[in-house]
Amino acid sequence: MPGTNRQIRLARRPVGAVVPEDWEHVTEPAAAPGPGMFAGRTRYISLDPAMRGWLDDRPSYLPPVGIGEVMRAGSVIEVTESDHPGYRPGDFVVGTFGVQEYVVSDGKGTLKVDPALAPLPTYLGALGMPGMTAYFGLLDVGALKEGETVVVSGAAGAVGSVAGQIAKAKGCRVIGIAGGPDKCALLTEELGFDAAVDYRAEDVRKALRTHAPDGIDVYFDNVGGEILDAALTRLAMHARVVICGAISQYNNETAVQGPSNYLSLLVRRARMEGFVVFDYAKRYGEAARELAGWIGDGRIKVKEHLVTGALDDFPATLQMLFRGENTGKLVLELS
Amino acid sequence: MPGTNRQIRLARRPVGAVVPEDWEHVTEPAAAPGPGMFAGRTRYISLDPAMRGWLDDRPSYLPPVGIGEVMRAGSVIEVTESDHPGYRPGDFVVGTFGVQEYVVSDGKGTLKVDPALAPLPTYLGALGMPGMTAYFGLLDVGALKEGETVVVSGAAGAVGSVAGQIAKAKGCRVIGIAGGPDKCALLTEELGFDAAVDYRAEDVRKALRTHAPDGIDVYFDNVGGEILDAALTRLAMHARVVICGAISQYNNETAVQGPSNYLSLLVRRARMEGFVVFDYAKRYGEAARELAGWIGDGRIKVKEHLVTGALDDFPATLQMLFRGENTGKLVLELS
Repeated sequence: MPGTNRQIRLARRPVGAVVPEDWEHVTEPAAAPGPGMFAGRTRYISLDPAMRGWLDDRPSYLPPVGIGEVMRAGSVIEVTESDHPGYRPGDFVVGTFGVQEYVVSDGKGTLKVDPALAPLPTYLGALGMPGMTAYFGLLDVGALKEGETVVVSGAAGAVGSVAGQIAKAKGCRVIGIAGGPDKCALLTEELGFDAAVDYRAEDVRKALRTHAPDGIDVYFDNVGGEILDAALTRLAMHARVVICGAISQYNNETAVQGPSNYLSLLVRRARMEGFVVFDYAKRYGEAARELAGWIGDGRIKVKEHLVTGALDDFPATLQMLFRGENTGKLVLELS
Repeated sequence: MPGTNRQIRLARRPVGAVVPEDWEHVTEPAAAPGPGMFAGRTRYISLDPAMRGWLDDRPSYLPPVGIGEVMRAGSVIEVTESDHPGYRPGDFVVGTFGVQEYVVSDGKGTLKVDPALAPLPTYLGALGMPGMTAYFGLLDVGALKEGETVVVSGAAGAVGSVAGQIAKAKGCRVIGIAGGPDKCALLTEELGFDAAVDYRAEDVRKALRTHAPDGIDVYFDNVGGEILDAALTRLAMHARVVICGAISQYNNETAVQGPSNYLSLLVRRARMEGFVVFDYAKRYGEAARELAGWIGDGRIKVKEHLVTGALDDFPATLQMLFRGENTGKLVLELS
């Protein structure tokens, strides 16, 4: 058992983009696991766009991270000692353990994972929350049907890359929107998307007219802002707009940019619907089995972006998401 | 048969609010009904917020009214001569006959109505398109359930006043949003709404917090803009936002104001859905029977705002809608 535990805590609420002063880097004595508990060392920490929302003090689907609290994060830990009957040293466990090097847990809300079945970071990506989010967002909220035209924004990200590949596995035509030629090449050349739109170089509205001439049946939105507005102009009749996130708006210091073209919902008899993946917790197993099958037969290629470093690299790594510097699931691997 | 036919035609596309110069007042020779057709004299002309949209040259659920074309409008005519087996002089017929004094038709898309069953203007209001819109928007798109909390904007208008009363008939708690104390008094004192919010005098967001403390299950939106944004902050879990119209935005010279708070759809697992009443044409009979029953037993009180005048009063009467000067269904009665 280590003597100390390094942690990243929230020092104050960010205004706009998160800056180093918003975090507090703390070293405290490591706690020993009590009766029925286990302890472990953090190996991989998940970085998610949703984290930005957890830092704001406003009502949301989870309470905000409190000032002085350890930053909330999903991670994979390796059990180092255990008084819990279900966990032994050497086991790997996924849970919302927070941004800290050393973890003590009673096991609630955690999941033991097998590194022989999938690389450990995949349990934070395609087989973790991003994969679940893509799966239920597209299939349940989006009510995807074979042969439909699907557009995914943030398509080279953790959720978008899986969502687009699920849509392909389901027999849809898929167009991804991403930033930059490298990400766009990844989508079409490696991940099997039918087309890619580089929002930094192209007029998204025009590009969607070209690539989805009969309109968009399902638009899976991770970004909000102008890209959402462009997609709304190209909806097919009875389209479904799945609101998964709005990363373009999370660092706004002013109001969120609402979709000016929302009246397309009326003209096209379409719906826009939001969801939170936690609501599907009882069905994670079902999704994980189907996703693992697609990964196994190559229909879903897992994209992970590993940054290897120390716990103190968490704040800088998080910023990569908001600058679009990651391709696939961004994970901090503790060296 | 009259010698001439007065018509209001679209002279040019309005920019922002419609002005007199956008219309052309024309007198042309009246056409005689051909074989299998009937002719009639216009008695009541419907004025609808949607008319503003029909004047813009952009893709919508109906083609725009062409420059030089007779303005599209629903009306009640009285048959004056007929070679059609189904229509006799003295019959009253509802149809999209346009803003003109004298009409010739083959009967397609028209409906004979009985003035003994309901006053003729009611076939343009609670038993016409506004009634159908309220019925299918609330019950089908909104998927209203007994005991839910419903908020209706434009609640003293043709659609809103019926929508709110349908929700009451279905056992819901209903809050109406309208402009001015007279309209608000109408809602609570005459139409049975549980509460009314005067958007001109009150902070709508705060008022909704007071009147819908557990959140809004169904928000039926006729207005868009800031009122839509206020309602979005108060959604209950799994709420349905029905996009029926956006009268606050129709005369904009700049972009439509998109709903900044649309991410509430995510937090509250809610959906926002648009519709066009024409899609329900096959079920109009079902809706009309149920609405007529509620009108008959007093659960729905019909509110009509009759302006008596000449055909040339159409442009000025239409403007009343956008200034909020009507209470209930606005109809021009030709004297």
